[in-house]
Amino acid sequence: MKMNGKPLVILNFKTYLESTGLNALKIAKASEEVADETGVVIAVATQAPDLWRISREVNIPVFAQHVDAIDSGGHTGSILLESVKQAGAQGTLINHSEQRMELADMEMVVKKANQADMVSVACTNNVDTSAAAAILKPDFVAIEPPELIGSGIPVSQAEPEIVEGTVEVIHDISPEVGVLCGAGISTGDDMKAALDLGTEGVLLASGIILADDPKEALLGLVSKL
Amino acid sequence: MKMNGKPLVILNFKTYLESTGLNALKIAKASEEVADETGVVIAVATQAPDLWRISREVNIPVFAQHVDAIDSGGHTGSILLESVKQAGAQGTLINHSEQRMELADMEMVVKKANQADMVSVACTNNVDTSAAAAILKPDFVAIEPPELIGSGIPVSQAEPEIVEGTVEVIHDISPEVGVLCGAGISTGDDMKAALDLGTEGVLLASGIILADDPKEALLGLVSKL
Amino acid sequence: MKMNGKPLVILNFKTYLESTGLNALKIAKASEEVADETGVVIAVATQAPDLWRISREVNIPVFAQHVDAIDSGGHTGSILLESVKQAGAQGTLINHSEQRMELADMEMVVKKANQADMVSVACTNNVDTSAAAAILKPDFVAIEPPELIGSGIPVSQAEPEIVEGTVEVIHDISPEVGVLCGAGISTGDDMKAALDLGTEGVLLASGIILADDPKEALLGLVSKL
Amino acid sequence: MKMNGKPLVILNFKTYLESTGLNALKIAKASEEVADETGVVIAVATQAPDLWRISREVNIPVFAQHVDAIDSGGHTGSILLESVKQAGAQGTLINHSEQRMELADMEMVVKKANQADMVSVACTNNVDTSAAAAILKPDFVAIEPPELIGSGIPVSQAEPEIVEGTVEVIHDISPEVGVLCGAGISTGDDMKAALDLGTEGVLLASGIILADDPKEALLGLVSKL
Repeated sequence: MKMNGKPLVILNFKTYLESTGLNALKIAKASEEVADETGVVIAVATQAPDLWRISREVNIPVFAQHVDAIDSGGHTGSILLESVKQAGAQGTLINHSEQRMELADMEMVVKKANQADMVSVACTNNVDTSAAAAILKPDFVAIEPPELIGSGIPVSQAEPEIVEGTVEVIHDISPEVGVLCGAGISTGDDMKAALDLGTEGVLLASGIILADDPKEALLGLVSKL
Repeated sequence: MKMNGKPLVILNFKTYLESTGLNALKIAKASEEVADETGVVIAVATQAPDLWRISREVNIPVFAQHVDAIDSGGHTGSILLESVKQAGAQGTLINHSEQRMELADMEMVVKKANQADMVSVACTNNVDTSAAAAILKPDFVAIEPPELIGSGIPVSQAEPEIVEGTVEVIHDISPEVGVLCGAGISTGDDMKAALDLGTEGVLLASGIILADDPKEALLGLVSKL
Repeated sequence: MKMNGKPLVILNFKTYLESTGLNALKIAKASEEVADETGVVIAVATQAPDLWRISREVNIPVFAQHVDAIDSGGHTGSILLESVKQAGAQGTLINHSEQRMELADMEMVVKKANQADMVSVACTNNVDTSAAAAILKPDFVAIEPPELIGSGIPVSQAEPEIVEGTVEVIHDISPEVGVLCGAGISTGDDMKAALDLGTEGVLLASGIILADDPKEALLGLVSKL
Repeated sequence: MKMNGKPLVILNFKTYLESTGLNALKIAKASEEVADETGVVIAVATQAPDLWRISREVNIPVFAQHVDAIDSGGHTGSILLESVKQAGAQGTLINHSEQRMELADMEMVVKKANQADMVSVACTNNVDTSAAAAILKPDFVAIEPPELIGSGIPVSQAEPEIVEGTVEVIHDISPEVGVLCGAGISTGDDMKAALDLGTEGVLLASGIILADDPKEALLGLVSKL
C-alpha cells in the first residue's frame, strides 16, 4: 500500500447494517470516488464476509477488521490471516477497542502480517499501550483515547497531548511505525489538526458510515488538506 | 433448506489452507458434484471470507462456521448474522468445540437464526449439553463426543449409547430438532451406522478436507446409503 | 445447606470495596444476625480471597461467586472448585451475568459441584436459558431479567410472567431445581411477591451491599415473610 | 518487597491439589524455612482462596496468580486487586501463559499495582512481548519460552539467547524492570545459569510443587548460589 506522503484515511465499517453487504459496497464505491477525486488514500475495513466482493469491485485498499492469532488448522469460526488475504484484504485492524487481543496474540498477528506483506494497524487506548504496541512493529498504531470515542469532541481540543505524546514516543521506538488518530475526528478541521499533531492519517467509523451522505461526509473530512 | 427425508452431510471447512480461498471453492464444487450424483444433501461450512464467492459458484447450501451474539452496531471484527446471510449463508454452526459460546449467546443466536430463516446447528459434547441446547430449538444439534474427535474410532463402535441417548433425549424435548453425529465418522459404514442410531446426518471435517481426493472421500462416505 | 422450607436469600458481594476484606466480614456478620433473628436462610457470596476468613467467622453459608471449568492442574489464576470448597465455600454462583460461562463449562461445573456436595446456583436471563440451565440440574436457577437488573423496578410489577414462566418451565423439567429471583427485588413487598410467584428465594447485591445500613436493609427485605 | 541484591524465587502454586488449601500451607511453610535457611527471597503465588490463610501463617511474600483489569464495582466472580491486597498479597503475577491478558488490561493492572505498592510480575513468551511488557513498567518480566515450559530442558542449554536477549532489551527500555526466568529451571545449576544470564531470579511451579519433597527440591534449586 503506497501512500507516497499522502494522508491515510481508514474507514472502519464495523457491523452496522448501513455498511453490510450491498450497503458496504456502496460506501466502498463512494470512498473510491473520493480517493480518486482528492488524492487521499482511503482504505475500507469491511466485515469478513464482504471482503471478497468489495475487493473485486473497488480499486482502493480493503482491510479486514480483525484476524485471529492462529495458524491454519482446526479453528472453526476463527478468522485466518491467509483467508482474508486470499479474499482480497491488503491489511487488517488489530486489537480494536471492540475486539481487544492478548499481547502475545498481537505479537503473533503483527508478525504474520509482516511476513504476508499485509498492512497491520494496531489500535490502542493511551500512550503506554501505544508504545508497547509499537515495539511489535506494526505498520501503524491508531490511538483512540476512550474518552473521545464517539464523543464528538475534536481530538485537537480535548486531548492533543495524548496524540502528540503518542507520536513522540512511537517515533522514538521506531520511526517506521506510523501513527493514526482514531477518535475525535469529525470535520475537515479535525483531520487537518490530526496531521498537524504528527499523525499520518485517521481511523474513522460511524461519523462517515452513518452520515446521510457518506461521500459528502468523506469529502468534508479531507477538504482542508 | 429442504431435505425431504434425505440424509444431511455438513462439511466443516475449518481453517485449513486446504479449504481456504480457491481450495475452498474446489472442495465446494466437488461437494456439489457428489450431492448431484447421489441425492444426499451436502452443505459446506466455509470461513467467513469465502462465503460470498462460494455461495455464488455452487448450488448447494453454504453455511457459516460461527456467528457472534451481536446485533448490528459497533462490533468491529465480529461476525454479524445479517452479514453472513447477505453473503449467501443459509445456515450456521453454533458453539463448535473450537468456538464455544456462552449459553445466553447461544440462545440469542439461535433466536436470530430462526427469525432470519437460517438453519442453526448447535454443536455439543455430551447428552446433557445436547439436551440443554435442544431447549433453545436450533434446527439441529450435532453431538461430538470429545473422546472421538479426530480419533478415527467409529462412533458406532465406541460410544453408540451417547448418540442414541442424545437422539432419545432431544426427541423427547422437541421432535423438530434434528440430531447430527459430529465425530467418529470416516467411512460409509460409519455414516450408515450414524443414521441407524437415529440421526439425520453427520458433521464432518478433516477426514474429507484433508483427503487426497475429497470428492472420492465424500463418495465413499455416502456409498452405503 | 438445609432450608427446611424457609426462604433463601443469597447476598452477592460482587467486587465493591464496601464488601471487600474487613467490610465483607462486617456485612457477613450483619447477615448472620439477621438470619439468627428472623429464621431466614441467608448465604453470602464473597470474593474468592475473602472466603477463608469469612467462613471461619460466621455461621451462615458462604458461597463463591464463580468457579472455573477446570480440574486441578496447571491453570494459573483460575478458580478451582476444590480450592473454594477447602476455603469454606458451601456453594457457588455459576454463569452470573457479569461472568457468563460457556454451556459446556456450566455443565462441567454443575456436575463437579454436585459430586462435591456443593450448592450450585446458575444465573440466567430469560425463560429459555433458565430451562436450558435446569437441564443441567443445578440446585437453583436464579433468573435475572436484564431489563430489571439495577433498575429499581419491582419484578412483581414489571415482569412477573418471566418469573412465573421460569418457575413453571423449570418445575416441568425437574422439580428438584429451585428457582430464585435475581433482579427487581428491593423491598419486603418485592421479596414476598417473589415467593408468591413460586420462587424459593432471592439473589441480591447492591441494594443491600451499598445501603447505608446493610443490616437494616436486610431486615426490611425479610420483614413481610 | 526488599531483595537487597539477593536472588528471587517465585513459586507458582497453580491449581494443583498438591498446592491447594492445607497442602498449599505446607509448601508455603517449607518455602519459608528454605528462605530462612538460605537467605534467598522466596515468594509463593497461591490461589486466591488461599491468600488470607497463608499470608497470616508465613513470613515470606505471598502473591496472587492473577488479578482482573477491573476497578471495584459490579464484577461478580472477578479478582479485584484491592481484594487480594487486603487478603495479604504483596504482589501478583500478570499475563501468565495460562491466563493471558489483553494489552490494555495488562497496562491497567500494572498501573493499579504500582499505585497500590504491589509487586507486578508480567509473564511473557519471547523477546518482543517481553519488551512490550517492559514498556508498561512492571517490577519484573518473567520470560517463559513456550518450548521450554514443562520440557525439562535447561534454559541455559536450550535457549540462552532468548533470556539474554530479553535481559538486554528490557534493561535498554527500563533498568528498573527486573527479569526472571520462567521455564527450563529444574536444578541448582539451572538456577545459577539463569542468574548468570542476567536475570534476578526465577519463576517456578510443578518442578517444586509436585516434587516428593518440595523443601528438598527448593534447597537443591538454591544450592549453587
